Amino acid sequence: MSSRRVAIVSDAAAYVGPNLARLLAARDHDLVVGDPADGLVDELTGLGATVEVVEKVRNLAVPEASERLVQAARDRFGRIDSATAFTGQIVVGRFLRSSIDDMRKAIVGCMEAPYNFLRAVVPVMVEQGDGQVLVFTSAAGARPTPGAPLYSSARAGANMLVRNVADEVVGKGVQVNAIGTNFMDFPEFLKANRAEEPEGRARVEAMVPMGRLGTLDELAHFSTAFVDGTSTFVTGQFIPFAGGWV
Amino acid sequence: MSSRRVAIVSDAAAYVGPNLARLLAARDHDLVVGDPADGLVDELTGLGATVEVVEKVRNLAVPEASERLVQAARDRFGRIDSATAFTGQIVVGRFLRSSIDDMRKAIVGCMEAPYNFLRAVVPVMVEQGDGQVLVFTSAAGARPTPGAPLYSSARAGANMLVRNVADEVVGKGVQVNAIGTNFMDFPEFLKANRAEEPEGRARVEAMVPMGRLGTLDELAHFSTAFVDGTSTFVTGQFIPFAGGWV
Repeated sequence: MSSRRVAIVSDAAAYVGPNLARLLAARDHDLVVGDPADGLVDELTGLGATVEVVEKVRNLAVPEASERLVQAARDRFGRIDSATAFTGQIVVGRFLRSSIDDMRKAIVGCMEAPYNFLRAVVPVMVEQGDGQVLVFTSAAGARPTPGAPLYSSARAGANMLVRNVADEVVGKGVQVNAIGTNFMDFPEFLKANRAEEPEGRARVEAMVPMGRLGTLDELAHFSTAFVDGTSTFVTGQFIPFAGGWV
Repeated sequence: MSSRRVAIVSDAAAYVGPNLARLLAARDHDLVVGDPADGLVDELTGLGATVEVVEKVRNLAVPEASERLVQAARDRFGRIDSATAFTGQIVVGRFLRSSIDDMRKAIVGCMEAPYNFLRAVVPVMVEQGDGQVLVFTSAAGARPTPGAPLYSSARAGANMLVRNVADEVVGKGVQVNAIGTNFMDFPEFLKANRAEEPEGRARVEAMVPMGRLGTLDELAHFSTAFVDGTSTFVTGQFIPFAGGWV
């Protein structure tokens, strides 16, 4: 057995996934990565990691996606020290113009996805007697969010799910936490918020108490503390990462 | 037009529904009641209320239930001053032994039901330019709940839904709030918690910081303040009613 830790990063193609995978590789982790960005596996290998790739697992609302990530980790490495999930399905629009199908869409993407991931990963860690799970949700789950009320509500459900699961396994050596972002500086966010040009960006930045967007690099560093095994006394927490918006 | 206010009480058969209906009737409300307990309509009429009964609407996860309550109010009284919904589907058991179907069952009962009720009632109140909605959820939505993790999580989603809807209509004269109970002294709770005999009751009471169960009478009085029109400055709030448990 390798003395390196084994980490699952469910989506290594976008958002903070690649940054987190690089940090973990540099900190003596072998990795199971979902749908890695072009060139990422070579980078991770160059950092000393053994890397197992699982394809077509971006959508964790499909239960098999999480099961395949877990199985890949067990088959290749025999254990899972930490597992990070990226979840969420944005649903925008006013409540007063919404339908039950909008509500269900938010629920499937924001609640069923983390449920499936937790349900696949946590039992393995309980059996091991240790492990760390981090679920990315959204800061919108911690406050009403005009323009995305159903999304905010489903995110709140997910945040409480993380707290409940953490509570159930608190004596088993397993930590379960959630980080919820908003106002992050990455292409998909900028595009969705028409913030690719300076004027649009200034409008979005004005919504952030800190007056700026968050970077993926700082998010990766912050997140690593929850999944790299250096600290295991925090569990059942939801931490907004949103420049003071929550 | 009558000068009495018009209140919907979605379930007037159990829990605090009958008590709330009586208080509202005594405080100059006409009522639309869902599935009233035997003899209740006569009591309410005796208190001066005009009463419209709607049958088979206990399960608000069925969208038509809320629509029928709303339509009954509009047809009989032409308006809705307040509307109180009773929602929830308990799902017990450990997360580690649960299935996605358990999660969905909790979501349908605890999130889709209030969604449907709010979606039916709030537009009418927005059109009127005033109205008060109260949704009963559970104190379990505000803290991890060992033995009912999925239920707790879905309740948290509902509590945030109430906050989001309140936020969206805050300028329209409509208030939307939630009360979440636990440890209430009524037959269904006592039976579900094996607290019908003194020994079982003492065991349950020991779980409550206040050392006693809550009464339906005090809950009815507390709830009335949210739906009788005497106070309209509170909105978007979730209030645990649980003897200090939250």
